[in-house]
Amino acid sequence: MNKIVQFKEFGGPEKLQFTSLEPGKLEAGEVLFKVDAFALNRADILFLNGHHYSLPNFPSRIGSEAAGVVEAVGSGVTNFKPGDKVSSIPFHNDAYGTQGEWAIVPEQYLCSWPDSLSAEEACSVWMQYLTAYYALFEVGKLTENDYVLIPAASSSAGIGAIQLTEEAGAKAIATTRTQDKAEFLLTAGASFVVVTEDENLAERILEITGGQGVRLVYDPIAGSFTKAYLDALARHAIIFLYGLLGGDATEVDIVAMVRKAAVIHPYSMFNHVCEAEQLEKGKDYIFSRLLNGSLRPLVDRVFDFEQTLDAYRYMETNQQKGKIVVKTTA
Amino acid sequence: MNKIVQFKEFGGPEKLQFTSLEPGKLEAGEVLFKVDAFALNRADILFLNGHHYSLPNFPSRIGSEAAGVVEAVGSGVTNFKPGDKVSSIPFHNDAYGTQGEWAIVPEQYLCSWPDSLSAEEACSVWMQYLTAYYALFEVGKLTENDYVLIPAASSSAGIGAIQLTEEAGAKAIATTRTQDKAEFLLTAGASFVVVTEDENLAERILEITGGQGVRLVYDPIAGSFTKAYLDALARHAIIFLYGLLGGDATEVDIVAMVRKAAVIHPYSMFNHVCEAEQLEKGKDYIFSRLLNGSLRPLVDRVFDFEQTLDAYRYMETNQQKGKIVVKTTA
Repeated sequence: MNKIVQFKEFGGPEKLQFTSLEPGKLEAGEVLFKVDAFALNRADILFLNGHHYSLPNFPSRIGSEAAGVVEAVGSGVTNFKPGDKVSSIPFHNDAYGTQGEWAIVPEQYLCSWPDSLSAEEACSVWMQYLTAYYALFEVGKLTENDYVLIPAASSSAGIGAIQLTEEAGAKAIATTRTQDKAEFLLTAGASFVVVTEDENLAERILEITGGQGVRLVYDPIAGSFTKAYLDALARHAIIFLYGLLGGDATEVDIVAMVRKAAVIHPYSMFNHVCEAEQLEKGKDYIFSRLLNGSLRPLVDRVFDFEQTLDAYRYMETNQQKGKIVVKTTA
Repeated sequence: MNKIVQFKEFGGPEKLQFTSLEPGKLEAGEVLFKVDAFALNRADILFLNGHHYSLPNFPSRIGSEAAGVVEAVGSGVTNFKPGDKVSSIPFHNDAYGTQGEWAIVPEQYLCSWPDSLSAEEACSVWMQYLTAYYALFEVGKLTENDYVLIPAASSSAGIGAIQLTEEAGAKAIATTRTQDKAEFLLTAGASFVVVTEDENLAERILEITGGQGVRLVYDPIAGSFTKAYLDALARHAIIFLYGLLGGDATEVDIVAMVRKAAVIHPYSMFNHVCEAEQLEKGKDYIFSRLLNGSLRPLVDRVFDFEQTLDAYRYMETNQQKGKIVVKTTA
């Protein structure tokens, strides 16, 4: 029970290594827990290849989401005790990491693991829902009159945003490249799906919204893809750019943006969970909806611990519909 | 007293024509005034070449700033009467235009012309100060602990932003390409001037601000110039892009922006003066400071009416330090 995943230089999944490491002494406020399952995120791939906002100190652990059972707590920890079931909340991960058989996380970045969720589900909660929460509600002030554009919607981040949008009474317009995942996105709760290889995105948005346009765009693609929806923004639109899936440069069309009084918000939930008040607000919003069943994470595929590198490679193929999880226990 | 400037197709200053035109019947809320002086803005050049947010209906008048004396008022006008001295506030200019011997403007886009200002000064007030006002205060929530970066600061827009920043107790860091205008910018009130051909902008900003960085950037250049200051943004910085002087594409460096929790705000005052409450707030803020003398527009050069095309060509050379004005009366 001491194997962890780490890396010593930037690169792809092949740089990840299994290492035996005993947990060190807990600092004040830290919690050690045995990991039952951990989730993969695109942020992990960016962290691994050196393109994430935060940078590792080598050798570095990796990962920000895991669910498990508390083994020990550092001084001053009041919310958790050994035996408690917990789920971790992503935060700047340069000094921590959850992918392995154990993890240490500061108390405030842990939440209870609701009994209704499996370990695979419990480790799939916080990145997707908090990322969507702060964008849509804290910054975007989503109202039920709004339409939200959710490109590349089949990822866990996309699913989380669809669920939160629809749960709040607003309408999610999900996009996917090919017909393959269109049905899945409707089942996942999106009011509308646009298949971008077959349809003109801006035209479809204007049709769906009766000319109103989308007020929030939750875009992990960026790059030249932004041009596909610029003409279908509502007035005072906010474009959240929270990923780099497109790979090419994202240009600002200043004139088009000003015509809609729209802004570009390069975005990460890390800039919100670092503030105590916002962290608690986000936790409360999501946790209450997990408890009453109005939110439930979708898990796509579960890998064994030994298959962790395969899980990363699978994420790189973009085939997933929901969360990719690794289970550390049989 | 019926000559106006108009254009019938997109292009450069050579497309501008002097035409005799009698004012038509005033609509409700409109005010006709004899123009004593009008100002030129970069927005006029963009409107002329078809790159402005608003587009003309040909044949189209041009210009948004003028000062003069009221001749007649339409029904329902209560704030002005014939004989009053007025100054016009820019708004979407596709149906109006102030460059000529007379102009018609809706009542709410007129303000009194303070006795302490000459005609040249009175027509140079509203574009520069309101553009800076809404960016710095309404959106940017400027506090006296902030540093504001003001690139290409020798334009009237730059001077207006310097004055408003310093008047509010914050610090303006003005930039200029060459040494030529450095002294002028200090005289105009900037706490600091950086000559971008001679100095590394980001390094100088970090030095000036003691590592804090600039929280607001008021940038008419955009394009690749944005790279010059990205590393010197304060946390939660806002980059206002309000012009297109750079000419090349403006790329969003998503990772660099997220590291600073910074946003990009393509910006025009037109998106603020179109809302009645904001219009009044802006007018009050600026007008009270004109009256008490804490703001006073800087006029660079005054052209005769017949030289209007020369005034446009002068603006295109970027030599000006302050406002370019045309006087229609001897």
